[in-house]
Amino acid sequence: MTPSLVYALTPGEPAGIGPDLCLLLAADAQPQALVAIASRALLTERTALLGLDVSLLDVNPGAWPRVPAPAGALYVWDTPLRAPVQPGRLDPANAAYVLETLTRAGQGCLDGTFAGMITAPVHKGVINDAGIAFSGHTEFLADLTGTPQVVMMLATQGLRVALVTTHLPLKDVAAALQPERLERVARILHADLRDKFGIPAPRILVCGLNPHAGEGGHLGREEIEVIEPVLARLRDEGLDLVGPLPADTLFTPKHLDHCDAVLAMYHDQGLPVLKYKGFGAAVNVTLGMPIVRTSVDHGTALDLAGSGRIDSGSLKVALDTAYRMTARRP
Amino acid sequence: MTPSLVYALTPGEPAGIGPDLCLLLAADAQPQALVAIASRALLTERTALLGLDVSLLDVNPGAWPRVPAPAGALYVWDTPLRAPVQPGRLDPANAAYVLETLTRAGQGCLDGTFAGMITAPVHKGVINDAGIAFSGHTEFLADLTGTPQVVMMLATQGLRVALVTTHLPLKDVAAALQPERLERVARILHADLRDKFGIPAPRILVCGLNPHAGEGGHLGREEIEVIEPVLARLRDEGLDLVGPLPADTLFTPKHLDHCDAVLAMYHDQGLPVLKYKGFGAAVNVTLGMPIVRTSVDHGTALDLAGSGRIDSGSLKVALDTAYRMTARRP
Repeated sequence: MTPSLVYALTPGEPAGIGPDLCLLLAADAQPQALVAIASRALLTERTALLGLDVSLLDVNPGAWPRVPAPAGALYVWDTPLRAPVQPGRLDPANAAYVLETLTRAGQGCLDGTFAGMITAPVHKGVINDAGIAFSGHTEFLADLTGTPQVVMMLATQGLRVALVTTHLPLKDVAAALQPERLERVARILHADLRDKFGIPAPRILVCGLNPHAGEGGHLGREEIEVIEPVLARLRDEGLDLVGPLPADTLFTPKHLDHCDAVLAMYHDQGLPVLKYKGFGAAVNVTLGMPIVRTSVDHGTALDLAGSGRIDSGSLKVALDTAYRMTARRP
Repeated sequence: MTPSLVYALTPGEPAGIGPDLCLLLAADAQPQALVAIASRALLTERTALLGLDVSLLDVNPGAWPRVPAPAGALYVWDTPLRAPVQPGRLDPANAAYVLETLTRAGQGCLDGTFAGMITAPVHKGVINDAGIAFSGHTEFLADLTGTPQVVMMLATQGLRVALVTTHLPLKDVAAALQPERLERVARILHADLRDKFGIPAPRILVCGLNPHAGEGGHLGREEIEVIEPVLARLRDEGLDLVGPLPADTLFTPKHLDHCDAVLAMYHDQGLPVLKYKGFGAAVNVTLGMPIVRTSVDHGTALDLAGSGRIDSGSLKVALDTAYRMTARRP
């Protein structure tokens, strides 16, 4: 029997719900060997707090699992905390711990140990409070893997939305929509849909920037001056790009039923529909990197840590997506 | 028996699907007396083209109907075309005709003849081509009724979304979000939900302008400098305003199940979700005017005029909404 692929799971902020989500997940058998990169002591404590019955199975670089863990068990690569954890209470002392789990996972993906990594939420603020400049998982992993441009894509059953710009003030969005950026993002989206999602000729619907996609220049000229020329150039190379379309008509079944992804120009143009449709079961996928990384689409929910009143829907979708993205590759 | 209220229906652009929608509608009895303000000749021609069996019943300012028309009949206030119409072919010669239908409807609402008006789509371009400055139904009716600030709201089953800014290039949105405008719009939305929709204490969810509602100022400062102070002031007066909330988490059942309307800062932040949910059955309501006006949420669809391959879902919702908005008033 071929050994299972091995995947890294990072529970993220130890005072948040990330550890809880990983433990709840262990109730069911995973189809692949999944390794939580986390403090064994933390997971043990949280297991007791949640009243769960989860066996923690130690693994490490000398001994990776060859088969998936059975239901009720979770593989753990022990990564010690720097300070004890109170659920719900952030402590900058553990910022280095959080980043170590990410580095272990990312390096393991780069060197081929892991087929992909799945991340639970981190807390940007507390890492910065520890004196470490950190603007998010995506940027950290882009640096670690030497990737100049990454693309954020959210996906749920029946809909994928990628973004040309992400976490920018709205007033800066129009200026950030440069042809070079749009072209790079569209190329990455096309290539990763093909190579990581197994879609031979992905069809991508592209939003305009302005209401009604600019209405022929009456409501803004970026469609005419930036978007259309870039799309025309890429179509000449064979990319199947439709648009620019008005965002408020694009997100209807007539259009969505015939596409593989939507490329939105900015955060609040694309994500409200995705999350409305996704209903707690959306996954965040980072495209453009030499590794596979998926993530939950929610935050640390500090107030719910240790409570058990959480739903692991998004983490399950993140895992399934990572498995599917890698299963299709040779 | 109390006579029925009388409502005005304007089929809009004569070369588009507006006349077709009005005729299709006549297959069913309306609960109120509905008067199409249109060319009788146009409706007769289009009836034949569509192969329908609709009786056109003439009415006019000397003789308004006192009861709803039966199924298969449509009241018509004949308003002659200026030139013959070919379905699908725009003709600036009829721009004055289109505006006359709107003027008749709007004046009739102002003078109490009509309880409200329901509009099918017009074509802005052809009216401007005729040398008449025209930026849309809403602006035309605001002028006619002397209303300094109107508010655009779209609604579908279970969701209402009003907009602080509407048809602006995206690059101009942040600068247009002035405290005075936000305050006026929020007041109008609150007052019309109460007075025209019969909601005694409407609860309104307010979006931030920036992704993640600015994330505490890290992704833009308009939430802190503009939105929060305005909301605080209005809350002191008793308005039930929640937010500013991130648009991509606001549009989830957890929040939407407990509100009467969403106030979005701009067009593509609020309308994609509304239209995704509405699925061809959304209505556009103009708030802030002394008259009731609702509209379909789609365009003239010139290529489908005369084809019969159209859906009157949005017009039906527009009618129902106008009836409900007026039924509740004393």
